[in-house]
Amino acid sequence: MNLLKHLTELLGPEKVTANETILEHHSKDESYFEPVLPDVVAFPESKEDVQKIVAFAKENKIPVVPFGVGSGLEGHAIPVHKGISVDFSQMNQIVELRAEDLIVKVQPGVTRLQLNHELNKHGLFFPVDPGADATIGGMTATNASGTQAVRYGVMKDQILDLEVVLADGRIIHTGTLAKKSSSGYHLNSLFAGSEGTLGLFTEITLKLHGIPESIMAARACFPTVKQCVEAAVSILSAGIPIARMELVDDRSIAQVNLFSGTVFPEEPSLFLEFHGNEAGNEADAQFVYDLFEEHECQEFTFEKDSLKRAQLWKARHDLSYAFRHSDPKLETIGTDVCVPISKLPEMVEYARTRIEKHGFDGAVLGHIGDGNFHTLVLFDPKDKEQVQKTSLLNEEIVEFAFTLGGSCTGEHGVGLGKIKYQRQEHGEALDVMAGIKHMLDPDNILNPGKLLPVETKATV
Amino acid sequence: MNLLKHLTELLGPEKVTANETILEHHSKDESYFEPVLPDVVAFPESKEDVQKIVAFAKENKIPVVPFGVGSGLEGHAIPVHKGISVDFSQMNQIVELRAEDLIVKVQPGVTRLQLNHELNKHGLFFPVDPGADATIGGMTATNASGTQAVRYGVMKDQILDLEVVLADGRIIHTGTLAKKSSSGYHLNSLFAGSEGTLGLFTEITLKLHGIPESIMAARACFPTVKQCVEAAVSILSAGIPIARMELVDDRSIAQVNLFSGTVFPEEPSLFLEFHGNEAGNEADAQFVYDLFEEHECQEFTFEKDSLKRAQLWKARHDLSYAFRHSDPKLETIGTDVCVPISKLPEMVEYARTRIEKHGFDGAVLGHIGDGNFHTLVLFDPKDKEQVQKTSLLNEEIVEFAFTLGGSCTGEHGVGLGKIKYQRQEHGEALDVMAGIKHMLDPDNILNPGKLLPVETKATV
Repeated sequence: MNLLKHLTELLGPEKVTANETILEHHSKDESYFEPVLPDVVAFPESKEDVQKIVAFAKENKIPVVPFGVGSGLEGHAIPVHKGISVDFSQMNQIVELRAEDLIVKVQPGVTRLQLNHELNKHGLFFPVDPGADATIGGMTATNASGTQAVRYGVMKDQILDLEVVLADGRIIHTGTLAKKSSSGYHLNSLFAGSEGTLGLFTEITLKLHGIPESIMAARACFPTVKQCVEAAVSILSAGIPIARMELVDDRSIAQVNLFSGTVFPEEPSLFLEFHGNEAGNEADAQFVYDLFEEHECQEFTFEKDSLKRAQLWKARHDLSYAFRHSDPKLETIGTDVCVPISKLPEMVEYARTRIEKHGFDGAVLGHIGDGNFHTLVLFDPKDKEQVQKTSLLNEEIVEFAFTLGGSCTGEHGVGLGKIKYQRQEHGEALDVMAGIKHMLDPDNILNPGKLLPVETKATV
Repeated sequence: MNLLKHLTELLGPEKVTANETILEHHSKDESYFEPVLPDVVAFPESKEDVQKIVAFAKENKIPVVPFGVGSGLEGHAIPVHKGISVDFSQMNQIVELRAEDLIVKVQPGVTRLQLNHELNKHGLFFPVDPGADATIGGMTATNASGTQAVRYGVMKDQILDLEVVLADGRIIHTGTLAKKSSSGYHLNSLFAGSEGTLGLFTEITLKLHGIPESIMAARACFPTVKQCVEAAVSILSAGIPIARMELVDDRSIAQVNLFSGTVFPEEPSLFLEFHGNEAGNEADAQFVYDLFEEHECQEFTFEKDSLKRAQLWKARHDLSYAFRHSDPKLETIGTDVCVPISKLPEMVEYARTRIEKHGFDGAVLGHIGDGNFHTLVLFDPKDKEQVQKTSLLNEEIVEFAFTLGGSCTGEHGVGLGKIKYQRQEHGEALDVMAGIKHMLDPDNILNPGKLLPVETKATV
């Protein structure tokens, strides 16, 4: 069938295209997975447009794959079974800001920086920062988190309500404007993190936070990565409400200095941030300093100045980009495991040992306040042995995380890359998940090939 | 069939009873709903026992109703269709405490105070406190919250993993030990708050928190309830991380003084608590004091002494009990709406006006930091006009909360009492909920008659 023709009739010519450059842009994300061109790209401007697209897709059993800005790391937006890529860039309005309620309602195409730019005018901010300037829709779909989750929680924790177009065209609301509710089954967290496989979001209502009176950042260097991690664990055990706590190993610092022109000491480091009032932050920072002394901290530098602070976090955010774009011939592949915090030292040690063992140039970094960290290794996608080794490395790290009671993905999501670990992580709960998918999308038109392994199809 | 005989054969005589006194104990909770005796009460001692009970119930299509300590307020534990009341009091072990990971694994029959008694030895605490010494299983099933939710979140936010016996006897785990995960659909929050209708919990793994270095409590009086609420809203807007913020109106204070022998001024009051380090708490408290001045605060008293602080919170916790047991001829009925915080002043005003209009003796109190409050009215259950009026009052308050974008229940759950509001609150999302229920429990043996309205049965 002529998809372009039919969708153009349905939506109007300005909202549908099969232009080769645009198809190509929607064929990939920031992952290493093989691009696949969609048949067409649709640019809905309203929930009614989304409804029309989904109804058409259902009638004709055509895959529908939502697309934000393509900053995902696990292939979520790649239309592996082709069909319609639904680009939300034309649904990028902040629908309603209720500053006095600490609530905002946005369309899914609003990006993180766009939102915070608006919120900051009101003394408010939205804390989830996956690094990339992702869309709120994409962040919701993958249950993103990032550097401030240790204090403010992950994406699903911020959601008050989702307006969702289901596969059968119904529009539901998963919540209300109330900050808490014990009414009905809690659907917010079921749809958040569902990666476009249960429905398409058309409006997202989020909790907001007041910008703290005082923000203080610090950088601490340790002799070894293990000592960094142990120092981090000691902060959490002491109950200090740290707002950010990032591990950046020596290899990462070298890369960031190269990429960002910074001159940070190339030692295993923690980047920290405290949010509160000035007296409280100073007391917390002093306590942290004392704790770090016990872990042989070699340097502890405050970045009180807001410009210096911004530089610190920009360097951190640019890190994975700095690796990914360091050499056009090389690709990067990362892991995203999350383990109980006391197991972090051995988990990180294990990851570093395996990277070395396989002879990779790679780094360890991440959100260790949550027990979540990433390994990033550079490899040549044309070198078969290297490709095999990256795959083996991934498996080794995920398997080790499982033995510690952890998860294969703390924040990047399943997409294509973590499907093979779903049965092992979830056991029979995977069949419950497959049952929910089957109930809501019996024809499997919503982002098919993602999140659930094919084997689970048979069990529902 | 002879249920007692069959279950006794299955589980052994010490785990099953049809003793009249025990049946009667399992026929009711703290709500005003008509008691219904179960056919038998089972006391499982292991997940295998629970599995056996559920398998037997499924085969014979007999209702299974979980029971904690019967402290629920919406009739969740009442076996309205009779069958087996499953009492978890023999599954009350703390299975594993991993202090260094801030994780504990418990059986569902562990109570809140039992847990905190153990945790406190390790400098840790579990923050969810619904007032009653409820079981962790019951608190999970209703997604309980209470006074500290404003800072630490509600029950579902604390859950890392649930071991659940499904209606078909399968045992699943809804999570892992990782603090965050983007793997699969997020089932923790689907089962938390499901009120025994989707499965029976046999183990619950929770996040813990370090006891803060400094805890400071305060009491503030205002000329009117409206000013109390406005003062509370101003704290939240300023981004102060208040740990507790309770509204207790003048009528409530009078009752608590009577019941607890306290001598608090009988004025509309806020009870507050700050958690952090001493310097930070003092700075926050000073800021709060300044904000309160603008709202004509008449008295601001610190309770720094831990005994005085304990007395303050005991008085608050005993409040609803103080009303409920004030006169043996009278019953209480409460509402539990939750609305956006800026709407609280008008919502609370409305509730007070309606209580007066109907001529009830009643109070307004609650967790206003979350936008959640309760009205409590005393009524004579034998007086038909009064009973009708309580019902009308409930409806008026819920309806008004809906017009403000709120929820009919912030923390008590649906049970029997809020079923009639489910369609209005959730719209078509209710059919998704019913679909999930139908998929997991097609014979409707798990706590039938709760949470979902009967009409939704037909739509799946």
